[in-house]
Amino acid sequence: MLQGSSVDNSGPSFTPLVVLELASDAKEETIAWLMGRIKDQQQNGGAELLVEQLGPGVSTQEKYNPNIFLVGASWQRLLSGAEDLGLFKEFSDGSMRAFTCANKLNFKEFKGDGDSFLSMAECQYIIKHELDTLRAKDETHVPGYTQTKLYPGKSIVRRLQSKGILIQMFPLHEKEALKRLSFSWYKKVKLSLQPLDDIKHYYGEGQALYFGFLEYFTFALVPLALIGVPYYLFDLDDYDRYVIYAVFNLVWCTVILELWKRFSASLAYRWGTLSRKKAFEEPRPGFHGVLGFNPVTGREEPLYPNTKRQLRVYLVSLPFVLLCLYLSFCVMMIYFLMEGWALSVHDEEPTFWTGILLFIPSIIYAVVIEIMNLIYRYAFNFFNCFASLFYIAFVMQDMVLLRQSLATLLITSQILNQFMEAFLPYWLQRRRNKKMIHKVRKIRTLEGKELPLTEQVRLEAHMSTYLGTFDDYLELFLLFGYVSLFSCVYPLAAVLVVLNNITEVYSDAFKMCHVFKRPFSDPAADIGVWQLAFETMSVIAVVTNCALIGMSPQVKTYFLDSETQLILWTVAVEHVLLAFKFILTFVIPDVPKHIQIKLARLEFESLEALKKKVKQY
Amino acid sequence: MLQGSSVDNSGPSFTPLVVLELASDAKEETIAWLMGRIKDQQQNGGAELLVEQLGPGVSTQEKYNPNIFLVGASWQRLLSGAEDLGLFKEFSDGSMRAFTCANKLNFKEFKGDGDSFLSMAECQYIIKHELDTLRAKDETHVPGYTQTKLYPGKSIVRRLQSKGILIQMFPLHEKEALKRLSFSWYKKVKLSLQPLDDIKHYYGEGQALYFGFLEYFTFALVPLALIGVPYYLFDLDDYDRYVIYAVFNLVWCTVILELWKRFSASLAYRWGTLSRKKAFEEPRPGFHGVLGFNPVTGREEPLYPNTKRQLRVYLVSLPFVLLCLYLSFCVMMIYFLMEGWALSVHDEEPTFWTGILLFIPSIIYAVVIEIMNLIYRYAFNFFNCFASLFYIAFVMQDMVLLRQSLATLLITSQILNQFMEAFLPYWLQRRRNKKMIHKVRKIRTLEGKELPLTEQVRLEAHMSTYLGTFDDYLELFLLFGYVSLFSCVYPLAAVLVVLNNITEVYSDAFKMCHVFKRPFSDPAADIGVWQLAFETMSVIAVVTNCALIGMSPQVKTYFLDSETQLILWTVAVEHVLLAFKFILTFVIPDVPKHIQIKLARLEFESLEALKKKVKQY
Repeated sequence: MLQGSSVDNSGPSFTPLVVLELASDAKEETIAWLMGRIKDQQQNGGAELLVEQLGPGVSTQEKYNPNIFLVGASWQRLLSGAEDLGLFKEFSDGSMRAFTCANKLNFKEFKGDGDSFLSMAECQYIIKHELDTLRAKDETHVPGYTQTKLYPGKSIVRRLQSKGILIQMFPLHEKEALKRLSFSWYKKVKLSLQPLDDIKHYYGEGQALYFGFLEYFTFALVPLALIGVPYYLFDLDDYDRYVIYAVFNLVWCTVILELWKRFSASLAYRWGTLSRKKAFEEPRPGFHGVLGFNPVTGREEPLYPNTKRQLRVYLVSLPFVLLCLYLSFCVMMIYFLMEGWALSVHDEEPTFWTGILLFIPSIIYAVVIEIMNLIYRYAFNFFNCFASLFYIAFVMQDMVLLRQSLATLLITSQILNQFMEAFLPYWLQRRRNKKMIHKVRKIRTLEGKELPLTEQVRLEAHMSTYLGTFDDYLELFLLFGYVSLFSCVYPLAAVLVVLNNITEVYSDAFKMCHVFKRPFSDPAADIGVWQLAFETMSVIAVVTNCALIGMSPQVKTYFLDSETQLILWTVAVEHVLLAFKFILTFVIPDVPKHIQIKLARLEFESLEALKKKVKQY
Repeated sequence: MLQGSSVDNSGPSFTPLVVLELASDAKEETIAWLMGRIKDQQQNGGAELLVEQLGPGVSTQEKYNPNIFLVGASWQRLLSGAEDLGLFKEFSDGSMRAFTCANKLNFKEFKGDGDSFLSMAECQYIIKHELDTLRAKDETHVPGYTQTKLYPGKSIVRRLQSKGILIQMFPLHEKEALKRLSFSWYKKVKLSLQPLDDIKHYYGEGQALYFGFLEYFTFALVPLALIGVPYYLFDLDDYDRYVIYAVFNLVWCTVILELWKRFSASLAYRWGTLSRKKAFEEPRPGFHGVLGFNPVTGREEPLYPNTKRQLRVYLVSLPFVLLCLYLSFCVMMIYFLMEGWALSVHDEEPTFWTGILLFIPSIIYAVVIEIMNLIYRYAFNFFNCFASLFYIAFVMQDMVLLRQSLATLLITSQILNQFMEAFLPYWLQRRRNKKMIHKVRKIRTLEGKELPLTEQVRLEAHMSTYLGTFDDYLELFLLFGYVSLFSCVYPLAAVLVVLNNITEVYSDAFKMCHVFKRPFSDPAADIGVWQLAFETMSVIAVVTNCALIGMSPQVKTYFLDSETQLILWTVAVEHVLLAFKFILTFVIPDVPKHIQIKLARLEFESLEALKKKVKQY
């Protein structure tokens, strides 16, 4: 753990955990009020945290923001925060139990007061939670800004953030721990699994689950890749040998998703997030709404009416989604026009250069897709990426073009992705850092390479903000789609995805450690909506693969006289496979038996405790 | 409640709840040992219940069984039994809580010591549970029967039952309550809903859920029946107008099943079975297996190895199932031979009598199906009932024959069912009762019509045993199948099923009240595996209806030139409908919001109580 002692004399007298950066022109009155509320005792509605202003450091010559504050807390405060959050920790009997201060000594890793019991990521999450749930009492507006209204129960931090008074709030990196983590993660020469527990320790459960999934997915792809290589090497131009491959493919994608659920439940149980109930937490501080009583916990908190949210979905989101889908469709049609034009040029004059020209439309389309994905990130990647492939496969029925498009899309988007998400930001970052280090050296002539705390905070404040695992999962989802939908036409796809995933581990790990501000940890118990997305994709894969099999010349030879018979058989096989898939989902339990028992035991003991407790009425 | 006072002087001094009938040649030694164990205190491993031998009554002249025992319990014992079982009752704050003796005064309906807090059905269930879990201690065999081995943890009652020493164990009817219930249930002239709460009070939750489902299903069928009648009246011979009907049909069956889940959750919450966890109960006493510790509750109980069970499923059950399926298939083929023969006779000589002959094979087949269903009740009803209909619909594609077969099957099996399950047993029962009452009158010249307790017990001991709701659900399942699969060909099916269900309510209510021994109550929280069975049927219905639509002449006219196009469109529509169905299942929550909140609140308070409790370590 980062201890209070610091090389820099201007450093605070406690372990700084979270940085608050206020606007440089924020009014004194506002700052004093906010700091007062943060330091105030909990019984007065404060957060009872420690705050100190960051000193000016060395960069005094330049314009700098004086309103940067470091937030920390005493060990007692952090432990009581952990209790409020309901963090699950390993109990002395080996089960996972919600932490309480009163029986802290019964938890396995609790030694003395605090050391290494809560990870720094957990401490930062606790502080974030305390700051987020710092609510307005009787203030009607933010002191100093009469226009910025408040009402009882409104999260102060969120209101300040939405008005631009609070610029950002981020947790600090730990230089030493980060160095150790990045060494064991991606700098080591020896090939090994990722240190998931260490990643969880430093970045929290959500991040660790993402990297766990990335690793699992890569290993799961290996059998598919191994089968794909000989297909590619020996049957180079024989597009109709893919029946066995397609059958293997769709059994594979069902099984790996089911097994992932079990693996992820094991991880989440070990990390204590599986038992922790999200429903019992206080609502996200971003929720607007009048104050009411939570019907489950009985706590007073803002309630958000459900009907309003649904209205917004149907009146705003839905039309927007439809418009974007239409745009994507137009772009796809333009791509086909270009493709046709390139083909006609090549047919007229078949030279090496017109041969290259054939690939140009696909490459342009891949680039346009990436740009469009960037613009409307959230809903259309599926359509964007797969619409043209479906069109080629089932309307044009041109397997050669499908193969070529798939390869171009895969390779182009992989190169673009890795470049855009890791190396470009790193390069920009590096230039900035060098300037800063250079400046510091000039003034202080430091002996070691370590930057003093003040400079570290100012450097980190300028790093990009990591926006969550959404984009990372989306990338994996699209790769999964390419492999499960069309890899029987282009068996090398699995190999390309495996290679991509291996570099992805390195580039993602690298960007987490060196490009972005440290993100707040996210106590996730599973990969959330992505599980559903991957499963939906695997259902679509069954349909697609069956259709591709039905269209293969190899199968067609069996039904030369009757196309109707062929289709009926294909549909019958598809229904059997779908039924088989659902039975498989049903038969494989989502949570391994030994963890089910532990969860049931917790529930049983809770109910028993409730029975006992009621006696005291 | 039935009180201890009885007209008959030979009656016991406590409220008799459950009857134990031992073999008339059971050894004195065995009886003394069993009664000792039942009366013994719980700390000595006994059941701590009250037992008395039934007197000889009036029928002394005839052979009678002297070894009939009445079992009851003190109120304190029943309340502690309710606590052991974890019965859920309404708490003073309106939520459902597990009952505990220590805070009995906080439960809403608890007044004084006992009266009407536990229903008689609950008391009987508690006594059954206590008797079932009366386990062998250090006995190596049943006293008096050295061949009948025992081992620590083995249920004594089960071993005696399996060896024929204990003939039966059944709960007593309550004449007064039964009279009131049967009046409000089916004797009233006014049409009204069934008194589900009273049924639950008298028969327990499992029975009440069955009757709730029967009623719900009947109401759910009404819209379908209303649409069906004009189809039947006006388009008598126009088999191709069924597209709209089929579409309505498959939306209907998805929606009603989802809504039933919500309705059933509401019922089960009100009755306290939704929160009660089956997993925490002790294992069924029938389980063989060595004694071990339950990993969830920590209680010592017999554990049954899972692998053994699976081995039995694969080596015994599966081959048996396959053999029976093969037999069913043979019978179906014979039916088609008969059908063809009848048709050829009618074609040769078309008279009125040969016209009737056309229906004979269907009727014979319906009767044979019923007989086969009786013989191997558990797995083949689906195949038995629907195989021939599928064959006619999709292989023979003969809609006239399908319509005729469906009508014959429906009507014949309805008549057979109601006759076999209610009126035949009632008639046999009635003859026996009359003889007995006649004999009693001759000796005692009773003033009222009420039989004394001794005779009541002996009469009930001779009533048939109700074997659970399996057959009743199966009947509804088959009717649901007929309606959802084929009613677009024969829209009157829904009307017939509605009529059948109305009479079914009466005949089932009648048989519960007058034909069978009172069954032990079954604390069910839902209709169990039948929910899955009905949902599977509704998926099959989507496929079947789409295929029927695709085959209809009306649709075929749109695709005169290309059969392939027709099939592809049918398959596409079917996939969209299936996807829609799954989205609908996903979108409609299984448990209504307000009950979800109550359940979450219980869980939250339990976890909070556990946190508090651990302090005392």
